[in-house]
Amino acid sequence: MMPNTKLYEGKAKTLFADGDDACLIQYFKDDVTAFEGKKHAVLAGKGLLTNRISAALFADLAEAGIPHHLIARLDDRRQRIRHCAIIPVEVVVRNMVAGSMLKRLSGKCIALEKGQPLPAPLLEYYLKDDDLGDPMLLPSHITALGLASEDELAAIEGMALKTNAILTARFASIGITLVDFKLEFGRPYKATPNDPPLMLADEISPDSCRLWDSKSGEVLDKDRFRHDLGDLIAGYQEVARRLGLSDALVDEASSQTKEAACV
Amino acid sequence: MMPNTKLYEGKAKTLFADGDDACLIQYFKDDVTAFEGKKHAVLAGKGLLTNRISAALFADLAEAGIPHHLIARLDDRRQRIRHCAIIPVEVVVRNMVAGSMLKRLSGKCIALEKGQPLPAPLLEYYLKDDDLGDPMLLPSHITALGLASEDELAAIEGMALKTNAILTARFASIGITLVDFKLEFGRPYKATPNDPPLMLADEISPDSCRLWDSKSGEVLDKDRFRHDLGDLIAGYQEVARRLGLSDALVDEASSQTKEAACV
Repeated sequence: MMPNTKLYEGKAKTLFADGDDACLIQYFKDDVTAFEGKKHAVLAGKGLLTNRISAALFADLAEAGIPHHLIARLDDRRQRIRHCAIIPVEVVVRNMVAGSMLKRLSGKCIALEKGQPLPAPLLEYYLKDDDLGDPMLLPSHITALGLASEDELAAIEGMALKTNAILTARFASIGITLVDFKLEFGRPYKATPNDPPLMLADEISPDSCRLWDSKSGEVLDKDRFRHDLGDLIAGYQEVARRLGLSDALVDEASSQTKEAACV
Repeated sequence: MMPNTKLYEGKAKTLFADGDDACLIQYFKDDVTAFEGKKHAVLAGKGLLTNRISAALFADLAEAGIPHHLIARLDDRRQRIRHCAIIPVEVVVRNMVAGSMLKRLSGKCIALEKGQPLPAPLLEYYLKDDDLGDPMLLPSHITALGLASEDELAAIEGMALKTNAILTARFASIGITLVDFKLEFGRPYKATPNDPPLMLADEISPDSCRLWDSKSGEVLDKDRFRHDLGDLIAGYQEVARRLGLSDALVDEASSQTKEAACV
């Protein structure tokens, strides 16, 4: 494949070919969407922030021995990643009740409160199929329908819980509560004997996490955009700042911030 | 509580007080509903058939040592049952892909066919909350949200799989394929040391099972009503006849059959 050929354009990222078939280039866009794409905006600097935050968090995970697809952050927008066949299952890790869990389950039968801690981290699985509205899967669906093997599912569960432990501690150390987040996993394409059979893929950023200031409860993640809780870029910048990421880049994002389209 | 006081009226059954607080009377109505109550009819004789079929199937399960709430079928419409606190979780056991599973998961990502066998019986869980549309639950939701303990959930899983094995064999012996079915479980009210901690409750009938003729594939269950596949009573009668239930009662139902209301 010719380098820089566009292979796939998603809502927040675009994938391009790399010179090496075993790799891809992941480009972080400024687009932010919610409610299955019904709410959409372009916020200048957003992709720069998610690129930098995700790279920093993946570096923490690598140190803890969690295999992932990130090879190197190339610049403000691009990462070279290991080419993976993505398992079409979104794994959601929840430490507290919020978001779709609150909306889906709180009613006359179970009374739930936003922010209610769960007795243990809870894993949910969703099929990546926009047309079907990303339906929830049971672990038994995943294996019965051949989306992943029993061994892979066990590995995914282990990696998700370990990732949660590492990120929860990392965010707690900077005064942020990790409420929940979404992960994706992939199988390396053209695997060599050195490759792990599964690796963490996609991104981990305020686009894919719920992050609340531990004291004030201020929302610092994409819910700012979903529910009009304040400037999204300012929230992401605050996360980047506390993670110790370069002020220069964050300032650059700030200076470019403007809403482009919101339907 | 005065005997015969109405305690709860559901879509297909009504519960009345019994003289004994540890018991209830379960009355089988002729009402049949689908699509969250949006489609409704009253089919004379339906309650008689579900009462008799469910009693016969519960008798098979009791023989196999599965505890359940049925004490005695009193007459054509009524059962005396053990009063239970129902766990608000519907347990669906699937042997093949059909119904909501097909609709929810078959798409561009997974291609499923109606009647496709599953590699092993698959258990699904749904919260009994009509207002929320009976959302799917993961086993971890059930324990994390306190709907059932880990031990109870393990017992429910074991009882559901054993029930499936017994009913699958029973139906296979009369030329019927058990595609899927729904179970409910309860904790005995005013439990004595002789009571099991959990028992099968509700009913097991063509209202709650998918039953296909093993050779022709003819649908013999409530899908006849849901999808206008033929006279519902004739299907239920065929199931009752093959189960060896009294011809007289089945004929009586037949003679009363007429559609009353379908909105």
